[in-house]
Amino acid sequence: MSRSTTIGVIGGGQLARMMYAPAIALDVNLRLLAEGPDVGAARVFKDVTVGDYTDEAIVREFAAGCDVITFDHEHVPTRILRGLVDEGLLVRPGPEALEHAQDKLLMRERLTRTLDAPAPAWRRCPDEAALRAFGDEVGWPIIAKASRGGYDGHGVWKLDGPQDAAKPFAESLDASAGETVQIIGEEFVDFARELSVIVVRSPSGQAVAYPVSETVQRDGVCRETITPAPGLPDEQAAAITKLGLDIADDLRVVGVLAVELMQRTDGSVVVNELAMRPHNTGHWTIDGARTSQFENHLRAVLDLPLGDPRLRDDWCVMVNVLGGTVTDLTSELLHCFARDPRLRVEFYGKGVRPGRKVGHVVTYGENLDDVLGRARHAARYLMGEIREGQS
Amino acid sequence: MSRSTTIGVIGGGQLARMMYAPAIALDVNLRLLAEGPDVGAARVFKDVTVGDYTDEAIVREFAAGCDVITFDHEHVPTRILRGLVDEGLLVRPGPEALEHAQDKLLMRERLTRTLDAPAPAWRRCPDEAALRAFGDEVGWPIIAKASRGGYDGHGVWKLDGPQDAAKPFAESLDASAGETVQIIGEEFVDFARELSVIVVRSPSGQAVAYPVSETVQRDGVCRETITPAPGLPDEQAAAITKLGLDIADDLRVVGVLAVELMQRTDGSVVVNELAMRPHNTGHWTIDGARTSQFENHLRAVLDLPLGDPRLRDDWCVMVNVLGGTVTDLTSELLHCFARDPRLRVEFYGKGVRPGRKVGHVVTYGENLDDVLGRARHAARYLMGEIREGQS
Repeated sequence: MSRSTTIGVIGGGQLARMMYAPAIALDVNLRLLAEGPDVGAARVFKDVTVGDYTDEAIVREFAAGCDVITFDHEHVPTRILRGLVDEGLLVRPGPEALEHAQDKLLMRERLTRTLDAPAPAWRRCPDEAALRAFGDEVGWPIIAKASRGGYDGHGVWKLDGPQDAAKPFAESLDASAGETVQIIGEEFVDFARELSVIVVRSPSGQAVAYPVSETVQRDGVCRETITPAPGLPDEQAAAITKLGLDIADDLRVVGVLAVELMQRTDGSVVVNELAMRPHNTGHWTIDGARTSQFENHLRAVLDLPLGDPRLRDDWCVMVNVLGGTVTDLTSELLHCFARDPRLRVEFYGKGVRPGRKVGHVVTYGENLDDVLGRARHAARYLMGEIREGQS
Repeated sequence: MSRSTTIGVIGGGQLARMMYAPAIALDVNLRLLAEGPDVGAARVFKDVTVGDYTDEAIVREFAAGCDVITFDHEHVPTRILRGLVDEGLLVRPGPEALEHAQDKLLMRERLTRTLDAPAPAWRRCPDEAALRAFGDEVGWPIIAKASRGGYDGHGVWKLDGPQDAAKPFAESLDASAGETVQIIGEEFVDFARELSVIVVRSPSGQAVAYPVSETVQRDGVCRETITPAPGLPDEQAAAITKLGLDIADDLRVVGVLAVELMQRTDGSVVVNELAMRPHNTGHWTIDGARTSQFENHLRAVLDLPLGDPRLRDDWCVMVNVLGGTVTDLTSELLHCFARDPRLRVEFYGKGVRPGRKVGHVVTYGENLDDVLGRARHAARYLMGEIREGQS
């Protein structure tokens, strides 16, 4: 690892974009393989290749110019990544680990088998009949998930009864793009709230864990995080943290691992999803932690010692800004910054489309109500939901 | 001001480079006019023009593609900037303000005339005889300064007696590059310490001030800052802050104004220098303040409301890393980060040459001795002054 080390980042979304600032500070070269010339990260990275990450020749050529490869998303086909590793290239996280974020069935099998990690009742359902049988057994509604290809609520279905059981098979086939997609039936957990723990692991096995966050998802999209998760007993926070570290270790993750959990009304938790890249539920760390998830991801990829993940303040809140009626976000800062000189803002450089994540705001401080209120106001304003004079 | 707003930054050093991260977050385009393709900011900016900032045609062409112009340094000739303003271009800070950072004589005259700001005894000395007379009057040694062209200790001479009086005239002529350079004689202030206050002012007149820092300069180069300045009485800190705000207002500064001061052994202070750009004594703000000087500089240039300048912790220390025996700085982080997970590092992307500023480290926390010790260790390590096992 040296100044001339080049990290290739596959995928040009906001996660790649937010890696750029810590890369500048550490004087590490980042090279981007972007879906197009105008995606968020491509708008700011100096060194950009535009190409299709599912095209093996393109990925290989891109990777050949880099010392190590990492990701903005988990959609690069496993066989391409295996090919890179076979050629001796460094891929971090490696395909063996990454598959457990790409394939929900693999994840459920592994976490149940090696760690006995808490999970909702689940079963691989090869056909409609199996899914109906599963639903009859655990009770409707149930959740069906496509094993691969899902993100932001896509590839997940809530099925109210046996009559819905055909849907996931029909819709997942449409979206599978040739990959083998399986359907998993899962118990519908009528959770009290969702939680997330972000851990970062380096190739040498060092790992750090950020404080557990409470997260709010709507329509499968992260809307808000509160850190630390209010009212979470220390012992349970420690157990969740240990679970995150154990999963990272078991899967030999390199870089960020996000473990999303559901907390039942009785207080117990089950693992919902894994992600192996900087994660929306960790965006608060840019302003709220001593070392951001983006810097720690780069440090892990470079096998540098990881930075302190602790909170800098009592509370830190992140609220996502989704595309609304406001098309020129930067101009709207006139109001937001005048109202709140402490507000932190991160825009993703994406065109505004309804419902699309286009940025986030962060607040921190001693009083949770104040911190939460300020962040929510700013986000709602930037989404065009309120105008001046309203609260 | 909108997403499509383009800020042109003239000068490709570390100050421009450190503007890039907040520009990404605010989704504002930065365009760079760089001295060469490999200077620190040119290595990371996406949109780079290489050209000579003293060439009027080049600066005009560059500026024509931007909505507003700002600076990494104060060396762009005033006549070129006046030309841009005459054409209706936004230049922030404007040439009328900037001249007071470019021309030390103008600065002394203005601050004395309009603000009665505390200054060392000083006099414009048109020739050796005048300088000798000044020295005889205030007592030797004295300081001589070239009115223009000085930076990092260049253009400043300590004269021990009348026999040295020829030196500034001979040496400043060599370095004047055709500009009219005058020599100022100044009382040699045998200061107890140096201080700095960073203020930021927007075109609409809003201004914020960062806490006053104690700064350590060696051979004319900033080596270390401690914020807040230890032992500075609140009343005096408030007076210094007011002085900074008054100067910014009087000169109609837009963006960062750094006021460097010398504190005499009796506790009183005098203004030493002004700078109108993000300043070395404000680098601590990236990690130590609620809004960094770089973000607030951009906000001012865009006439957006300014962000909270307060410290996030009790103490924040910055120590510069100067080029030493270590040529591959990033590799040295292995030791530094392993020793101190809380250490913050910013490298400038410059080749290492002895004595050249190549980066800085920042620490923050509750205990000043601890904070200071950690920062100094890391900087010394990165300069090759100590190796593992030493403290």
